[in-house]
Amino acid sequence: MDKKTEEAIEKVIKNDPFGHLLGVQVVDFSVGYARVSMTIQPEHQNFHGMTHGGVIFSLGDIAFAIAGNARGKTAVALNVDISFLQATEVGDKLIGEAKEISLNGPIGLYEITVTNDNNQDLIAKSQAVLYRKKESFIKD
Amino acid sequence: MDKKTEEAIEKVIKNDPFGHLLGVQVVDFSVGYARVSMTIQPEHQNFHGMTHGGVIFSLGDIAFAIAGNARGKTAVALNVDISFLQATEVGDKLIGEAKEISLNGPIGLYEITVTNDNNQDLIAKSQAVLYRKKESFIKD
Amino acid sequence: MDKKTEEAIEKVIKNDPFGHLLGVQVVDFSVGYARVSMTIQPEHQNFHGMTHGGVIFSLGDIAFAIAGNARGKTAVALNVDISFLQATEVGDKLIGEAKEISLNGPIGLYEITVTNDNNQDLIAKSQAVLYRKKESFIKD
Amino acid sequence: MDKKTEEAIEKVIKNDPFGHLLGVQVVDFSVGYARVSMTIQPEHQNFHGMTHGGVIFSLGDIAFAIAGNARGKTAVALNVDISFLQATEVGDKLIGEAKEISLNGPIGLYEITVTNDNNQDLIAKSQAVLYRKKESFIKD
Repeated sequence: MDKKTEEAIEKVIKNDPFGHLLGVQVVDFSVGYARVSMTIQPEHQNFHGMTHGGVIFSLGDIAFAIAGNARGKTAVALNVDISFLQATEVGDKLIGEAKEISLNGPIGLYEITVTNDNNQDLIAKSQAVLYRKKESFIKD
Repeated sequence: MDKKTEEAIEKVIKNDPFGHLLGVQVVDFSVGYARVSMTIQPEHQNFHGMTHGGVIFSLGDIAFAIAGNARGKTAVALNVDISFLQATEVGDKLIGEAKEISLNGPIGLYEITVTNDNNQDLIAKSQAVLYRKKESFIKD
Repeated sequence: MDKKTEEAIEKVIKNDPFGHLLGVQVVDFSVGYARVSMTIQPEHQNFHGMTHGGVIFSLGDIAFAIAGNARGKTAVALNVDISFLQATEVGDKLIGEAKEISLNGPIGLYEITVTNDNNQDLIAKSQAVLYRKKESFIKD
Repeated sequence: MDKKTEEAIEKVIKNDPFGHLLGVQVVDFSVGYARVSMTIQPEHQNFHGMTHGGVIFSLGDIAFAIAGNARGKTAVALNVDISFLQATEVGDKLIGEAKEISLNGPIGLYEITVTNDNNQDLIAKSQAVLYRKKESFIKD
C-alpha cells in the first residue's frame, strides 16, 4: 500500500460522525488492529447513572470498524456478541481495542475489549464477525 | 403495583441521558416489554455514510433496559448478541422493540428487534441475557 | 426444484452420521425450515446428571443445518449464539426447530429453539448466522 | 481446598457420560481452566463429510464445564457465542481449552478455543457466560 492510499484510508476512517458525537479519539490503527479512547460525560449515562451499554458497545464498535476497514476494502459487521463485565461512570477514561483473530475469504473474526484506563478493569469483551466486500472505498 | 410506584418507575426510565442525546422517544412499555423510536440524523452516521452500528445497538439496548427494569427492580445486561441485517440512512425512522422470552430466578432472556418504520425491513435482531438484582430502584 | 432434485437433497440431509449417533429424527423440513426430535438417553448426560449442553446445541444445530441446506446449496454456520434456559433429563423428548429470519446475498440469519415436548418448556434459544456458498451439493 | 476435596471434584468432573460417548480425554484442569482432547471419528461427521458443528461445540463445552466447576460449586452455562473458523475431518486431533476471563459474584466470563493439534489452526472460538450457584456438589 503506497503512502497516498494510506493517507486516503486514514482520512475516511477518522471522519466518523457518530465517533465525533461521542468524543472518541483514534489512538492507533493498522491493518486488522485499532485502539480508540473516550472520556465518559454526563450525557453518556443510562437511567441508573452508569455508563450506557450503548456507549460501551459503540466505543468497541468504532475500534472494530477501523481495524476491519484499514485495508481500504469496505467491511461491515455481521454479528457482535458483547459481554458486560463491570460498570463505569462519568469521568472514567475508556479504551476500546479491536484485533483480527482470523480472516478466511470474506469473513473475519475480531476480538474487542473495552478497558477502564484508570484501573485497568476489563469493562466489556466482544467477539465479532465481519464481512469484507471486494470493492475498495478509496477511489484513484 | 400501585399507581404511585408505576409513575415513579416511568419517571426513572424516561430520564435516560444517552437516550436523550440520540433523540430516542419511548413509545410504549410494560413489564417485560418496550417500544422506542428515533429518526436517524447526520451525526448518527459511520464513516461509510450509513447508520452507525453503535446507534442501532443503542436503540435496541434502550428498549431492552426499559423492558427489563419495568418491574422497578434494578436489572443489568450480561450479554447481548446482535446480528446486523440491513443498512439504513439519514432520515429513516427506526423502531426498537424488546420483549421478555424467559425469566428464571435472576436471569432473563430478551429478544430485541430494530426495524425500519418506512419499509418494515428488519434492520437488526438480538438476543440478550439480563441479570435482575433483588433491590428496587424506587424508594418509598 | 424438480422431484428428482428434492429427493437427492433429502437423501443427503438425512445421511448425518452425528445425528444418527445422537438418535435424532428428522420430523419435517422445507427451504429455510426444519424440525427434528430426539429422546434423551443416559449417555447424553453431563457430570451433573442433566442433559449435556453439547446435546442441546447439537439438536438445534442439526435443525439449522437442514433448514439452511434445503435449497441444495452448501451452507455452513459462521456464528451461533445459544442461551440455555431450562435443564432437561433422561427420558425427555426434545424438539429442535430452525427457521430463516433473513437472507441477504450469501448471509442468512436463523432462529433456533429447543423445546421439551413433555411440557412445552423452552429449553434453549439461539440466533445463528449462515454463509451460503454458490455451489450445489447435488450433482446432476 | 484439601486433597480429599480435590479428588472428589476430579472424580465428578471425569464422570461425564456425553464426554465418554464422544471419546473426549481430560488433559489438564485447575480452577478456571481446562484442556481436553478428542480424535474425530466417522460418526462425528455431518452430512457434508466435515466434523459436525455440534461436536466442535461439545468439545469446547466440556472444557468450559470442567473449568467452571473446578471450584466444586455447581456452575451452569447461561450463554455461549461460538464462531466457526475452519473445517476439520476424520482423524484430526482437536484440543478444547477454556479459561476464566472474569468472575463477578455469581457470573463468570470464559474464553473457549478449539484448535487442530495437527496444524495449530484455530477451528472455533467462543465466549461463554456462566452462572455459579452457591451450593457445592461435593458432599462431606
